[in-house]
Amino acid sequence: MIRVGVIGASGYMGGEVVRVLLNHPGVELAWVTSRTPGPIENYHPDLYGQGIELIRSDDISPDDIAVCEVVFMALPTSACLQIAPRLLEAGCRVIDLGAAFRLDSQPVWERIYAQPHTQWPLAEEAVYGISELHLEDIRQARLIANPGCFSSAAILGLAPLLTQGLVDSRSLVVNGLSGTAGMGAELSRAAHHPEIGNNLLPYNVVDHRHTYEMEQELSRLVSDEVYVHFTPIYVPITRGILNICHAFSLESVSRKNLLALYSDFYEGHPFIRIYDLPEDKNEAWQYRAYPWVSTVTGTNYCYIGLDVDEKRNRVVVFSVLDSLGKGGARVGVENMNLLFGLERSSGLQQTGCHPN
Amino acid sequence: MIRVGVIGASGYMGGEVVRVLLNHPGVELAWVTSRTPGPIENYHPDLYGQGIELIRSDDISPDDIAVCEVVFMALPTSACLQIAPRLLEAGCRVIDLGAAFRLDSQPVWERIYAQPHTQWPLAEEAVYGISELHLEDIRQARLIANPGCFSSAAILGLAPLLTQGLVDSRSLVVNGLSGTAGMGAELSRAAHHPEIGNNLLPYNVVDHRHTYEMEQELSRLVSDEVYVHFTPIYVPITRGILNICHAFSLESVSRKNLLALYSDFYEGHPFIRIYDLPEDKNEAWQYRAYPWVSTVTGTNYCYIGLDVDEKRNRVVVFSVLDSLGKGGARVGVENMNLLFGLERSSGLQQTGCHPN
Amino acid sequence: MIRVGVIGASGYMGGEVVRVLLNHPGVELAWVTSRTPGPIENYHPDLYGQGIELIRSDDISPDDIAVCEVVFMALPTSACLQIAPRLLEAGCRVIDLGAAFRLDSQPVWERIYAQPHTQWPLAEEAVYGISELHLEDIRQARLIANPGCFSSAAILGLAPLLTQGLVDSRSLVVNGLSGTAGMGAELSRAAHHPEIGNNLLPYNVVDHRHTYEMEQELSRLVSDEVYVHFTPIYVPITRGILNICHAFSLESVSRKNLLALYSDFYEGHPFIRIYDLPEDKNEAWQYRAYPWVSTVTGTNYCYIGLDVDEKRNRVVVFSVLDSLGKGGARVGVENMNLLFGLERSSGLQQTGCHPN
Amino acid sequence: MIRVGVIGASGYMGGEVVRVLLNHPGVELAWVTSRTPGPIENYHPDLYGQGIELIRSDDISPDDIAVCEVVFMALPTSACLQIAPRLLEAGCRVIDLGAAFRLDSQPVWERIYAQPHTQWPLAEEAVYGISELHLEDIRQARLIANPGCFSSAAILGLAPLLTQGLVDSRSLVVNGLSGTAGMGAELSRAAHHPEIGNNLLPYNVVDHRHTYEMEQELSRLVSDEVYVHFTPIYVPITRGILNICHAFSLESVSRKNLLALYSDFYEGHPFIRIYDLPEDKNEAWQYRAYPWVSTVTGTNYCYIGLDVDEKRNRVVVFSVLDSLGKGGARVGVENMNLLFGLERSSGLQQTGCHPN
Repeated sequence: MIRVGVIGASGYMGGEVVRVLLNHPGVELAWVTSRTPGPIENYHPDLYGQGIELIRSDDISPDDIAVCEVVFMALPTSACLQIAPRLLEAGCRVIDLGAAFRLDSQPVWERIYAQPHTQWPLAEEAVYGISELHLEDIRQARLIANPGCFSSAAILGLAPLLTQGLVDSRSLVVNGLSGTAGMGAELSRAAHHPEIGNNLLPYNVVDHRHTYEMEQELSRLVSDEVYVHFTPIYVPITRGILNICHAFSLESVSRKNLLALYSDFYEGHPFIRIYDLPEDKNEAWQYRAYPWVSTVTGTNYCYIGLDVDEKRNRVVVFSVLDSLGKGGARVGVENMNLLFGLERSSGLQQTGCHPN
Repeated sequence: MIRVGVIGASGYMGGEVVRVLLNHPGVELAWVTSRTPGPIENYHPDLYGQGIELIRSDDISPDDIAVCEVVFMALPTSACLQIAPRLLEAGCRVIDLGAAFRLDSQPVWERIYAQPHTQWPLAEEAVYGISELHLEDIRQARLIANPGCFSSAAILGLAPLLTQGLVDSRSLVVNGLSGTAGMGAELSRAAHHPEIGNNLLPYNVVDHRHTYEMEQELSRLVSDEVYVHFTPIYVPITRGILNICHAFSLESVSRKNLLALYSDFYEGHPFIRIYDLPEDKNEAWQYRAYPWVSTVTGTNYCYIGLDVDEKRNRVVVFSVLDSLGKGGARVGVENMNLLFGLERSSGLQQTGCHPN
Repeated sequence: MIRVGVIGASGYMGGEVVRVLLNHPGVELAWVTSRTPGPIENYHPDLYGQGIELIRSDDISPDDIAVCEVVFMALPTSACLQIAPRLLEAGCRVIDLGAAFRLDSQPVWERIYAQPHTQWPLAEEAVYGISELHLEDIRQARLIANPGCFSSAAILGLAPLLTQGLVDSRSLVVNGLSGTAGMGAELSRAAHHPEIGNNLLPYNVVDHRHTYEMEQELSRLVSDEVYVHFTPIYVPITRGILNICHAFSLESVSRKNLLALYSDFYEGHPFIRIYDLPEDKNEAWQYRAYPWVSTVTGTNYCYIGLDVDEKRNRVVVFSVLDSLGKGGARVGVENMNLLFGLERSSGLQQTGCHPN
Repeated sequence: MIRVGVIGASGYMGGEVVRVLLNHPGVELAWVTSRTPGPIENYHPDLYGQGIELIRSDDISPDDIAVCEVVFMALPTSACLQIAPRLLEAGCRVIDLGAAFRLDSQPVWERIYAQPHTQWPLAEEAVYGISELHLEDIRQARLIANPGCFSSAAILGLAPLLTQGLVDSRSLVVNGLSGTAGMGAELSRAAHHPEIGNNLLPYNVVDHRHTYEMEQELSRLVSDEVYVHFTPIYVPITRGILNICHAFSLESVSRKNLLALYSDFYEGHPFIRIYDLPEDKNEAWQYRAYPWVSTVTGTNYCYIGLDVDEKRNRVVVFSVLDSLGKGGARVGVENMNLLFGLERSSGLQQTGCHPN
């Protein structure tokens, strides 16, 4: 049994890690922390009766750390910078669900996160945790930088296209529609139900931080600079992300060929499903032809679908995932499984639940 | 492996049975039917890639029936009356997710369902499928009448109170708030998003059919007639039911004592959770003190919580469940498990997923 | 032109007063205050471009007060107790949208609001602002205590029944379903979209403060004590309240006769609509037979509908209103119109907007 | 008083025309039709008690037509092609809320609407009803082709940019997020609440019909071909559209200058509001910096806001309107006002209602 610690479980991300690990056959929860101690159901009512007491984050002792083989951090960035070295020195593997170690340029990181990065060697060591692109590196990592939710959806959605050089890499346009759980458990004006419940909220609409993760990972796949023109919008669903990715094709492509390309690209990766509902006469088909975000909430799946405007040379790719699932906590567990040689889908078999 | 057939899987109820059985370790799906054949993802996109082809309900042959040990029926009432005898004669056990066999008075049934009941002996034989009240009968049954969703929530919520004779049995008031999945997959004006999406819809507000199930089951627990004053309202959530049950107490009762009574009553029943969050100073407590319907969606759990107005002698009980879970398809699988001596929670371990 | 001041316009209630007064032909806005100064669109984006600058509440001078004939207070209770005397002494009429002056028992008020009431003579002077019951008193008032939103809906819904002595006054059960705007603009856990967006939240489920307003006003109509068994639930709609009021009838009553009684009772009151959609064969009828809360959002209307369970002697009354409309800010303007002899519906002609 | 007929008022578009005209001081409703006769509240409960009886569309006589000066058509395309000539021959002006007369290429129209166009001379005569671009033509028109909802939002959002030649006209990317009222009152799988209530639905994601309106109108403003890469998504709000328009700038531009350009472009047009909330330190600012669709529901306003990614040379423009307001019925009334020399905003003063 792998012994695991979770730091920061009052939030949605840390709570989801606990939820998954409780049903994981190869794992034992050593301890779970929060800023304020108490029963976990104070924050996550669905975990009522599980008998989990949160301990204060500040009370973790070296002994606590020593019993763990791996620790998940679901914390603000600055706290991660402080705690990660302690965990690594004690011999733990670390999976950071935050943004502290995702980028490979220190000046860029410091500008967009508006603080000095005090642990840059760790950032250089960290592996960016998209298993479909960095499988072997993840298996060997000490420190995994779990990707941002929008980033995961965009990178998974666009990687096959870019690898093949089929589209212009400077004019990728991505609209990210996010459910409100993506804003986290901290109260905020934007998540106040009267204001968002029947409304749509654009925010950080140019130069969003996740843009840099997308550009970094996608530019590794091409021999050219990549520009992602990314705009997120909060929408009144509770969980999940739909990324709508537009790319201008450099040569003639067809829906059918691209779907085959995507299926090949992700072959052997169990959590990517290329969604290719065969066209039929059913009146409902046009609404079922593309992936539904409701299909992946509560799961570690990413569904990808697409279409082609042959007249105007545009490809549109839809990728859906749960920001707490394949876009966050669950993919963290997938990475943990890889790290310890467990079955990749252990604890992650949960499928969707239509209608939802 | 128990071989199972499912009749009527284009709807939400039948789809949920298939979803659960696919992850059930003791079961093999023999066949699944629908009015219109085709891949099951035409109706349930989360089952994409599972390779399940629906066959036409009319094409089930005697041989198809013969291979099954149990068949789930998720059909309109009149179709159930026709098919159930064929299934039983062929030696199958039958779990009816509809309303054909729930009541024990033929005149009442015929009046409220506005049709003759052509198989009354089967109605008399059928066991009403609330395992917490009829555990042994379910284990021996040939034909199980799965309860209505509102009925389950109300009966489970009120049974302990009535058994102890603590409340007036003639003035029980129940408001049932239901998500729209409770209306089923058939298109309807009431489920049209522009009209219900930011609205609340009372319907069948007096003498609703489920009232008779509630009165029938609760009157078995007391030595007196029971009147349930039931009014349902559709609310813009997708899944789940919150029943708010008001009872006038005949003697002085306290929240603490009633919670203890409920815990005793349901001891040993794994899918009932008595929700008793200890009062604390946390500002969020008043909103977390009672069960949340979002906690049980996609599960077979029923959470029950309550409070007492000591000044006015009222008890208010909250019971939440998923109309496709403990209020429908999943409880059908629980009953199947009991019927075949499987572990009661086999295939039903799915827990909640906060926030949801 | 009546000159009006509004104290506390960063919240939803004060914002709605401003919104209505801007389109009121007989009124001139003298000044509008907030804790934090700035353009009103910082709080109410629909008022963008109207040129309204909020001044700090603490900066209102005696001169500011002197120019006004009436002031609306949309403030916490303790602030109202402090400011109201200053306004009245300066000769202003005062419309309090809060709870400071609604009850006629000082001990009850002090217990449920958990503070001493420092201005009890004003509470005794204040007129409870339901125009359908206190029309003449409102016309003469110096200080109007605007009713609570749930209270308005329950009192308007039950008054005709109680006046006629048709129902048991000790066992009135009211479930109040409220949209989240009813929680106000202050951030709160219960209004956090991830938690309420697909969920239902019971809170303060026994002995809610509004219960006392309901009992106070309804007991004036009967020669007996009244018990209202009130339980509110927050539901994921943005605006509006649906009260479901159950009453046990003492004699045989019919839907038709009760609807006639209600129509008579509210004759001449333009903002009450008795909703009596004639039964027809239309399949959609059962969902349209009762009032819809979406019909009254953004308006000063209260729709009332009802039905009778003749077998079990129960009457169920549905009353819908907008907590910022007939349950709050707009009814405050209606009371202002009565106070100054303006046309009762001046500024309040706004009708519903289906679908909404 | 202008006498007006409305054909097709059981749907949302026709219902909204009636709702607006009932409060229009210069108009008299001559008759209102529907496929099925009956009181209008059968379809629009907020119009309860207005005494409007729908007559059967097939029963309109030449005399009915003769009394009207203008008729609104809210009908399927093929019905419009049949009825429009009868109305025009009788001397009525016609405002078509549908798609029959919007395009200026017959082959394109016949391909994308999949039917022959039997009245092409009328299509050539019709004026495309965006008053900000075709003010004088609308004043002189006999037949007005009211624009599509997505088209209005995109054209209004992009026109100033294109007129100035600031952006590449071949790579305009538009994501249209639409509330479900945009699907109309006809029941459909995509509007079934259990499936859309907590979900996002891409549909017709390339070569959507409205694309051709956008390209036609925008290409009139530039000396070059225009490609609009348009993808719509249904989102679970009830009313309103947010168009997110991306354009690649050909030269360096700034947010401030573009906002000034937009303000100049729409000067004198009362229903366009350029939303330029000054940046401040308020934590909520980032969510309030762009237009909110909830601000325009139920109104004839279009709010436009924008931002610039100076690093990547992208402009992102947000335009919001109500598909039944400035994107449909209300703009039809605005066009009627222009046609008859009434005040342009007559009957259209309704402003937003935050929170909503």
